[in-house]
Amino acid sequence: MAEEPAKETRGKKKGKADENMIFVGKKPTMSYVLACVTQFNNGLNEIHIKARGKAISKAVDVAEITKNRFAEGAKIKDINVGTDVINSDEGEKLNVSTIDITLVR
Amino acid sequence: MAEEPAKETRGKKKGKADENMIFVGKKPTMSYVLACVTQFNNGLNEIHIKARGKAISKAVDVAEITKNRFAEGAKIKDINVGTDVINSDEGEKLNVSTIDITLVR
Repeated sequence: MAEEPAKETRGKKKGKADENMIFVGKKPTMSYVLACVTQFNNGLNEIHIKARGKAISKAVDVAEITKNRFAEGAKIKDINVGTDVINSDEGEKLNVSTIDITLVR
Repeated sequence: MAEEPAKETRGKKKGKADENMIFVGKKPTMSYVLACVTQFNNGLNEIHIKARGKAISKAVDVAEITKNRFAEGAKIKDINVGTDVINSDEGEKLNVSTIDITLVR
């Protein structure tokens, strides 16, 4: 619903993440911070930090830590939240919240 | 840091929440959804859903459920994230991420 169109995808939309997208999941927070810093160092000026469900809190941590401690001059350009419908193992439909934090420098 | 000034506070700033602020914590998600719906029904047109740490994910759930299922025409006007410094029991300083979701109708 509030899901933004994936403008940056380059024609193909697969499980593989685009290089300017960081999908936050179960790894330690600093793994994702490192991924963000690496992408900035690779020359990208805009990265999307995405997460859903309980990982949303961690995504905010990643954005804040990257911005405040590692990427001088980086700032949060935009934050979008939305709802994804996923199929559970029992075949039920579950709603899960999503977040997309756009970090620019 | 990215903490927005509390514009809506009415001169006094105490532990007690202003009526247009919902602080999301350990209660079930639907308790906070009910609080949001109640405030809209009381005539408020703008509410702030606030949380920090792991409750951030729940705050996003509260905003999405309120918007999609209970408050027709409500939408998310703004989302701000920031970092609070809190003192741990051991006297150390800890950083904790915060979120403030502005829901309007």
